[in-house]
Amino acid sequence: MDTSLLAFFHPGGVVIIGASSNPAKLGYGVARNLVNSGYDGAIHFVSQKTGNLFGRPIYTSLNEIPDPVDLAVLIVPAPGVLEALQACVRRSIRAVIIVSSGFREAGPEGETLEAEILRVARINKIRLIGPNCIGLLDTHLPLDTTFLPPPMPTAGDVAFISQSGAICAAIIDWARGQGFGFSLLISLGNQADVNETDMLSAVVEDEHTRVLTLYIESISDGQRFIAEANRVAQRKPVLALKVGRFASGQRAAASHTGAMAGQDAAYEAAFRKAGVFRAATSEEMFDWASALACCPLPQGRRMAVLTNAGGPGVIAADALEIHGLSLAELGPETRQALASRLPPASGLHNPIDMLASASPEVYVDCLRLLLADPGVDGVLAILPPPPMYPAESVADALIPLIHASPKPVVVALMGEQLIQKAAMRLRAARVPEYRFPERAASALAVLAKRAEFLDKQTLKVSQTFRVSKTAARAALVDAPSGRFLDPELVDCLMAAYGIPTAPVKLARTEAEAAKIASELGFPVVLKIASPDIPHKSDVGGVLLGIEAPEAAAEAFRTVIGRACLAKPDAKIEGVYIQHQLPDGQEVILGASRDTQFGALMMFGSGGVEVEGLKDVAFALAPLTPFESDDMLRRTWAGRKLAGFRSIARADGEAVKDVLLRLSQLVYDFPEIAEIEINPLRVLSRGAVAVDVRVKL
Amino acid sequence: MDTSLLAFFHPGGVVIIGASSNPAKLGYGVARNLVNSGYDGAIHFVSQKTGNLFGRPIYTSLNEIPDPVDLAVLIVPAPGVLEALQACVRRSIRAVIIVSSGFREAGPEGETLEAEILRVARINKIRLIGPNCIGLLDTHLPLDTTFLPPPMPTAGDVAFISQSGAICAAIIDWARGQGFGFSLLISLGNQADVNETDMLSAVVEDEHTRVLTLYIESISDGQRFIAEANRVAQRKPVLALKVGRFASGQRAAASHTGAMAGQDAAYEAAFRKAGVFRAATSEEMFDWASALACCPLPQGRRMAVLTNAGGPGVIAADALEIHGLSLAELGPETRQALASRLPPASGLHNPIDMLASASPEVYVDCLRLLLADPGVDGVLAILPPPPMYPAESVADALIPLIHASPKPVVVALMGEQLIQKAAMRLRAARVPEYRFPERAASALAVLAKRAEFLDKQTLKVSQTFRVSKTAARAALVDAPSGRFLDPELVDCLMAAYGIPTAPVKLARTEAEAAKIASELGFPVVLKIASPDIPHKSDVGGVLLGIEAPEAAAEAFRTVIGRACLAKPDAKIEGVYIQHQLPDGQEVILGASRDTQFGALMMFGSGGVEVEGLKDVAFALAPLTPFESDDMLRRTWAGRKLAGFRSIARADGEAVKDVLLRLSQLVYDFPEIAEIEINPLRVLSRGAVAVDVRVKL
Repeated sequence: MDTSLLAFFHPGGVVIIGASSNPAKLGYGVARNLVNSGYDGAIHFVSQKTGNLFGRPIYTSLNEIPDPVDLAVLIVPAPGVLEALQACVRRSIRAVIIVSSGFREAGPEGETLEAEILRVARINKIRLIGPNCIGLLDTHLPLDTTFLPPPMPTAGDVAFISQSGAICAAIIDWARGQGFGFSLLISLGNQADVNETDMLSAVVEDEHTRVLTLYIESISDGQRFIAEANRVAQRKPVLALKVGRFASGQRAAASHTGAMAGQDAAYEAAFRKAGVFRAATSEEMFDWASALACCPLPQGRRMAVLTNAGGPGVIAADALEIHGLSLAELGPETRQALASRLPPASGLHNPIDMLASASPEVYVDCLRLLLADPGVDGVLAILPPPPMYPAESVADALIPLIHASPKPVVVALMGEQLIQKAAMRLRAARVPEYRFPERAASALAVLAKRAEFLDKQTLKVSQTFRVSKTAARAALVDAPSGRFLDPELVDCLMAAYGIPTAPVKLARTEAEAAKIASELGFPVVLKIASPDIPHKSDVGGVLLGIEAPEAAAEAFRTVIGRACLAKPDAKIEGVYIQHQLPDGQEVILGASRDTQFGALMMFGSGGVEVEGLKDVAFALAPLTPFESDDMLRRTWAGRKLAGFRSIARADGEAVKDVLLRLSQLVYDFPEIAEIEINPLRVLSRGAVAVDVRVKL
Repeated sequence: MDTSLLAFFHPGGVVIIGASSNPAKLGYGVARNLVNSGYDGAIHFVSQKTGNLFGRPIYTSLNEIPDPVDLAVLIVPAPGVLEALQACVRRSIRAVIIVSSGFREAGPEGETLEAEILRVARINKIRLIGPNCIGLLDTHLPLDTTFLPPPMPTAGDVAFISQSGAICAAIIDWARGQGFGFSLLISLGNQADVNETDMLSAVVEDEHTRVLTLYIESISDGQRFIAEANRVAQRKPVLALKVGRFASGQRAAASHTGAMAGQDAAYEAAFRKAGVFRAATSEEMFDWASALACCPLPQGRRMAVLTNAGGPGVIAADALEIHGLSLAELGPETRQALASRLPPASGLHNPIDMLASASPEVYVDCLRLLLADPGVDGVLAILPPPPMYPAESVADALIPLIHASPKPVVVALMGEQLIQKAAMRLRAARVPEYRFPERAASALAVLAKRAEFLDKQTLKVSQTFRVSKTAARAALVDAPSGRFLDPELVDCLMAAYGIPTAPVKLARTEAEAAKIASELGFPVVLKIASPDIPHKSDVGGVLLGIEAPEAAAEAFRTVIGRACLAKPDAKIEGVYIQHQLPDGQEVILGASRDTQFGALMMFGSGGVEVEGLKDVAFALAPLTPFESDDMLRRTWAGRKLAGFRSIARADGEAVKDVLLRLSQLVYDFPEIAEIEINPLRVLSRGAVAVDVRVKL
């Protein structure tokens, strides 16, 4: 951990500046919570008036309070915050939580004040949480610097780091009802200094925290977030609820890649790269957190369902498939053993339906058999209110077996009042329980994903291909920003990074067209050359299969004529001529630049229909070989490279190579705003970039 | 309602055959529940031993009990059920619930017994619920014939009809915790006689039921279900949780349509046709039911979000977009009025963030302003535990306004303990409340869908095109089942239903090929003719752009050669020759036959990649014009018919016409197992079926 953050987590003494004896004030709430939290260090109060609060004196100056004190919580009105911060400077306090609001969120004046406060803090090596936040809460230390209504949340092993304060109050209250506990709860407010990334790195060190959860509205330093979150995720699971998906609206873009790469695609790619699992809803995030905090990880995706009723078993089977898990095929020994333990009408094929008469002993015996089957990676046990036995007797019987198993078991405990006791027992025993099989299946799936993420980490290899940055720089050095790069320079750029292209030459006259075509070798393709016509085929500016010099001359005329007709104002430079490649599959590769996360790579089905078909995958540069593989797997364009019906197999390895090289190129040259290869012709051996557009 | 079912819902007297004074027996549970339910008709007990139970005599014979009695509940062991049923016959009882298990679900012997019971019931005009069911429960009458653990569910306005008994117990218990009430609860068991469709038609008549919910594992008579459910859905919303999505596995299929039309696609299409809304999870179904039971329907999809905290507001905005709703643009007057009511830092653009200080009065004033804006169709009000006011004071203040509004308002009440009282008040006032904004948004979306469904009903028009069934029958009459229809007959079939085709002729020799090609007019296409080669292009069996007689002769040799090489065992009949059509867009149209629901139509992106791209939509025949429109809207293949970039507009109306004609054809001729037009070439005016395969 960054040691400058230590005092937030293990303060030797805490002072509340702006403590109040008026219960209607937040300064009272913070004092009350801190005293009641059971924090065993020194607690001090500072306010404008002396007095007594919770049996402690209120001082009027920070200088008067005795040592130790190394964490200050500020709840004075915004205009007084700077003075209070300077008092902290004089007292050598290095960790400050500013709860007060009235800063950036309140307008330009507040923004200036916030900047000044940050400046003072930076000069004096003070770390700030906030302003405009709820503060920090540690259930194990314990420590509570918030003004949230009591009681404190239940102690647990999930940390919650939030960019929204209001969510914290609601989540704590909701979690209490779910019997769900937190280790740490941190509200970040305006993040003038400490942000979500700093906190991730700090919180992973907390011994009581097993899972980190994030509520995120935006990330300011995307590259650092990915690097830190990935480091953290190697050690403990990180889950995120990212909101504001649709906030950014559509951006103007010059390429398909740009048009399709919305802000959300970049966040999605960033989380994927970092190994952060993104939940769709708040409930889902905490459902996942429960399982990740309590369960061993499965070796694979083959799950068994154990139930005492058919209906919920079918629901569970569906839900497993929806979440990408599979129903385990039970071994013959397992089926035989189950058959001898269960009544004849039972269901012996996964889902295992023990029928409504199943006793706690039957539950235990069958679960033991399923866990012993090498073809089973985990079990979803379903427990509706059993007609013959109290649900808690089943829960009690299962707990020791679940604890002893190296495979995960989650429980769908269906109902409410009739399963209350069973729920309490399971929670106390740290066995994840969910009200419906659908949610339990989602939790099992995240366990499998986590296991795969940890496995995958060993696959990372360094890239071995060679590129010439010097040659690429030469191609880019004089190119005007905001324009498309000339095709000849594009060819140089591609050559520098080892991306094969079909050589392109510019013909300015009919005669030149015939000559160039003969030099390149027939058949050739002609394409209009104009910086004002990005989508050439839209204006009929592409002609294929030209087989002779005279035909090339005629095609020159046709293409120029069509372009003039379609875009009378366009600057026409001539016609590009290219040797026409053999048949093959065609894909699109591209990169656009995201303000937070840098170069966002796209791969998928190309052609003009790319925006309609939406068969594309995104990932952030620089790509690892695993990531480029994954982009192929996630798209039909990638999967069909292996061949499909009459579509001949094409060279998938060559595509991955081009993806990696292109990713390296845009990573090395931030001045490239957008780049798109559409199409990349994938041959039976090799791949050639047919049309490449580079925007600076 | 089918009057034969009346006695289940309004019995004059109920007898329990198999009542027991042993609390460990189900016969005790049923007797207890019936007595405790408050049912005000006559209650009688029959058992093998006389005695007394709940202050009533136990008779040993049905003949002994006094009138009235018109509903019998049977809980005797399976072997005794037939005798008990015959006793009911003698006593002229016409409604029987068989709770007992040990029938079809228990094996062949039970199946025989069940068939015999059904036979006796049919002869004697007795209607049966069950066997192997939990029975029926009416909270308003009241009546409870189940053995479920007490107490009865809360009275409400949602009916639950279930093919699973175990689900009922769990759902009742869960619903109690949610403060959610039921009007009727019906467990159908093995459905020997009465099934889900019968019950839909009966339950819609219940005055206390506002919403019908179904738990379905399978539907036996699909056509009847669609017709009845649609009738019911015109009057009251019908929601379904259909499980067993993946149960059927992959079916062998001879066409793309067949391969892609899984059983689940048919259910999805059936629900869509019927106007039944399908929920993804149990929770979602009841979230929807709450909103549909309590809220007025919106006029459109433009929703406003009212919140006292930014974070939850952003979550809500995301969730609305995800569910296909839009954030309303507020009118300038509304924004001005909000501005004058709220502090300066508030968010005045939807979502409206009133800040944490919002009092109950501010909530009311702002909600009133939003509801008054003509650009707002509904409101999602968010209420995390407010820091300054009890949540229930806000709830109390909002309720009268919500009741008075003709627009729907749902509440996201975030938290648990701090919002308990508010939850109680809202539930009592019939205002739907959800723990998270995501669920509230989903509920608003279903209200919008319901409104659109009811509107759409007025759009149905009868089909006006002419077809010749006689000519079609002539083409099909001698065709062997299980085989593909000869192309010449396919052409006749298409002609009979007015679907344009490119005429196809069979050439058996090179010379014939040259002659036919000249007759049809160049350019022509050649395709291999073999019943054993369904996917012609997979074997290189298609050659395009043949421009002269000699070329046609050569192409004949090539195609035959390739086919022999690829499929040496295939029976080769020759080569089909077709005039080659002008360029246009290409789509796929097909139909396969679902065992439950009949002809399932498919439309989408065709070619060989159809199975990979999955850009297809399904609907059940016969299609209405609205449905054929909708299939186009739901696919990229359909949307791009309007033109996209360099892809020229094509005749979408012609596609819809062919879809309707094809749907009529498969509806009229059940002997057509699969039919596929791939591709249908869509020209700027008109559309032509290029390749049609018909399997019988």
